[in-house]
Amino acid sequence: MVVQKEITIGPFKKGFHLITRIIEQNLENPPEKGILNIHLKHTSAGLCLNENADPSVRYGFNSFISKLVPENDPCFTHILEGADDMPAHIKSGIFGQTLNIPITNYRLNLGTWQGIYFCEFRNYGGTRELVLTIIE
Amino acid sequence: MVVQKEITIGPFKKGFHLITRIIEQNLENPPEKGILNIHLKHTSAGLCLNENADPSVRYGFNSFISKLVPENDPCFTHILEGADDMPAHIKSGIFGQTLNIPITNYRLNLGTWQGIYFCEFRNYGGTRELVLTIIE
Amino acid sequence: MVVQKEITIGPFKKGFHLITRIIEQNLENPPEKGILNIHLKHTSAGLCLNENADPSVRYGFNSFISKLVPENDPCFTHILEGADDMPAHIKSGIFGQTLNIPITNYRLNLGTWQGIYFCEFRNYGGTRELVLTIIE
Repeated sequence: MVVQKEITIGPFKKGFHLITRIIEQNLENPPEKGILNIHLKHTSAGLCLNENADPSVRYGFNSFISKLVPENDPCFTHILEGADDMPAHIKSGIFGQTLNIPITNYRLNLGTWQGIYFCEFRNYGGTRELVLTIIE
Repeated sequence: MVVQKEITIGPFKKGFHLITRIIEQNLENPPEKGILNIHLKHTSAGLCLNENADPSVRYGFNSFISKLVPENDPCFTHILEGADDMPAHIKSGIFGQTLNIPITNYRLNLGTWQGIYFCEFRNYGGTRELVLTIIE
Repeated sequence: MVVQKEITIGPFKKGFHLITRIIEQNLENPPEKGILNIHLKHTSAGLCLNENADPSVRYGFNSFISKLVPENDPCFTHILEGADDMPAHIKSGIFGQTLNIPITNYRLNLGTWQGIYFCEFRNYGGTRELVLTIIE
């Protein structure tokens, strides 16, 4: 059986944001066992799982990734949408836009320290759309 | 229900290529709701979702990633298959070889700007095999 | 139908390790067709698919990725758990913690050269928990 729902989140400022609660609150009657597919319908933001306790982990992610994929790299020619646009596409390609999380005993089966990060790579990304699909 | 099909694509030259149409044309009777798993059976190429309109985004990806993971890095000892081989494995690990895309109303539920990229990381990668699995 | 099982692996030393056999041995009666979701419940290790024959590929991965995401980067402020901790979180974000592999004819449908890598990014990561979910 497949249950599906679309939600809108944000806007969030540039950086990594914990959205585990937002996702959990949008799951109506999750099954005993299954998979939740979370798909972000954008190419300049991303999704990943990471440490859910210390905000300095999320700050470190943003600083490091911004240095790894810098603005104004000479090999970027797609520049009309701003200096933050092409790095955002590349970061989005590296992190990906889809998560697939197991559901066990009617809950997301995340590790103790795992949270769902929404990664906003644009300076002004606006609201973002997610598709939540449960396979049971 | 699970529907599965294997297809062969390419050869493509080194770089990032839009294959959304190829994938869509190979989906026979997609369900009203479900998930499409696209799995690439190779370790020197990848799959990702990204901007589907301006080819300069795909050129920028190739230039930047080739610089991020350069050939002839002194830490590579697996070199018998050519200088492009080990960087191809690492890029393939970073981008991944599998996509999981929701299906809604009998179509892939991609964002307006999302296209499916096939990422060829070898100079002469040859044809490549994909497994398409629909869960409905 | 959904079949689910949790397993513990390791401890493994820092680096990339082939665990295809461990996963296959834990699949009881895989279906004719389906998807296997492998989810790692940790944020300082990862999973990916890559070359399964030459160990020097796995050594090259470890050397290169350790250089790409170095310890003691000045932008890391989350440092109480050791110099290897924050790089481990970032590598885990880049590689991801979940794989979704098609099952065909009662077996994982991997390419000839594809193996499942467990990526230990901590110096002393200890044992690690995986959730195996088969959708058929």
